[in-house]
Amino acid sequence: MASIKLKTVDTRAPKKLNKETIKKETQKLKFKIEELQNLLYAEGKHAMLVVLQGMDASGKDGTIRNVFGAANPMGCRVVAFKKPTELEMKHDFLWRVHSQVPEKGMIHIFNRSHYEDVLIQRVHNWVDAKTIKQRFAHINNFEKLLVENNTVVIKFYLHISKEEQLGRLQERMSDPAKMWKYNEQDLQEREEWDSYMKAYEDVFANCEEAAKWQVIPADQNWYKEYLIAQRVVEELEALKMKFPGLKPANS
Amino acid sequence: MASIKLKTVDTRAPKKLNKETIKKETQKLKFKIEELQNLLYAEGKHAMLVVLQGMDASGKDGTIRNVFGAANPMGCRVVAFKKPTELEMKHDFLWRVHSQVPEKGMIHIFNRSHYEDVLIQRVHNWVDAKTIKQRFAHINNFEKLLVENNTVVIKFYLHISKEEQLGRLQERMSDPAKMWKYNEQDLQEREEWDSYMKAYEDVFANCEEAAKWQVIPADQNWYKEYLIAQRVVEELEALKMKFPGLKPANS
Repeated sequence: MASIKLKTVDTRAPKKLNKETIKKETQKLKFKIEELQNLLYAEGKHAMLVVLQGMDASGKDGTIRNVFGAANPMGCRVVAFKKPTELEMKHDFLWRVHSQVPEKGMIHIFNRSHYEDVLIQRVHNWVDAKTIKQRFAHINNFEKLLVENNTVVIKFYLHISKEEQLGRLQERMSDPAKMWKYNEQDLQEREEWDSYMKAYEDVFANCEEAAKWQVIPADQNWYKEYLIAQRVVEELEALKMKFPGLKPANS
Repeated sequence: MASIKLKTVDTRAPKKLNKETIKKETQKLKFKIEELQNLLYAEGKHAMLVVLQGMDASGKDGTIRNVFGAANPMGCRVVAFKKPTELEMKHDFLWRVHSQVPEKGMIHIFNRSHYEDVLIQRVHNWVDAKTIKQRFAHINNFEKLLVENNTVVIKFYLHISKEEQLGRLQERMSDPAKMWKYNEQDLQEREEWDSYMKAYEDVFANCEEAAKWQVIPADQNWYKEYLIAQRVVEELEALKMKFPGLKPANS
């Protein structure tokens, strides 16, 4: 996805699409995810890692609830990467991430990820340009390691407009059921919007050696969920999995 | 639950119950679980640990899929305890378990648990009576620690009949979609049925200081799922949770 300019990518669905039709499609895709995930678990030959990145309120949590909520929790685990602990800070940036990757049979969803170390850290100049460049290389090598160990790595950037984000943050300030999600810092981060967009564009240009990024128009949840469910199904179907037969004795 | 005799406990639902009515009730309970779990996550004051124990094919996996499948995977994690690794064996028996307990806001479901160390290990005489007695005390202390840290601990024993188990194991041998679950060892463990029942009865008699056991008639999935969903809802409602308001600045 070399040299993509996020400003030129729509944050909304194409006008010709019908919301209700798409929602029905998504429902079918969710049943397929449930079925394919069971097969992934039963076969135990592959793993899947889904990386969710996006600005605050871009809909990462909602994606997890609405797309992966259908999956059996036995085979599906969510890992949220928040501000690193003191111990984590004393390790290399991939240490806490590596320990959380899926074993064969499992789908893990990263709610934020190792990419924060080349996004927020870069935007605030907590690390220098040389370190960022090194990290890009380490991320590529790390993802290659996973892919070569039969892990399907899918990376989504949830692309919302700055205006849509403001609306959602304001909702968090006024809806009692959403206030717990509000963080004063979110508005401060919003000030850095353009720097974040630039940092994401650099990530897309530099971190695709092992797994491609997909930019998801995310202003409308129904379209976002459809695209993500569709990609997950495609990737799982491509594995051409089969139920294994009976284990040989004493295996 | 002092001195319960499992032989005297029915493995089936009371005859007067109507399956279809109960299934509708369960569906309502599942919506409540989804709602209450979101509140648990948002409030972040309590955690919930659900321990699932039972003989092979007693329906632990199905419980996870059908009762907890409704929950948002962001707030709900399944931990399966299998044969300990070499490293785990070099630690005390609670070491691998303690690291997997839920933090506040989360529901963790243990698919088997620390109780295996006073069940399978006892049935096969891998540990002596003195060790079992010590472990009972350690389990009580461990669960007390969790409870005092605001974790609701719920322990279910899925009670199936020996005949029902045989039918299910045979199904695993013949249904291609279930063969991956079949393990030759299951039939060997079945030979020890009475010893297992005795070991479970001892567990109930000795490990209730911090959290009670509930014996779930489990020959019929619809009844099993109803009872478990009902208990989970009851326990979550008893917490009288509320959405927190806006965080104070700089918190």
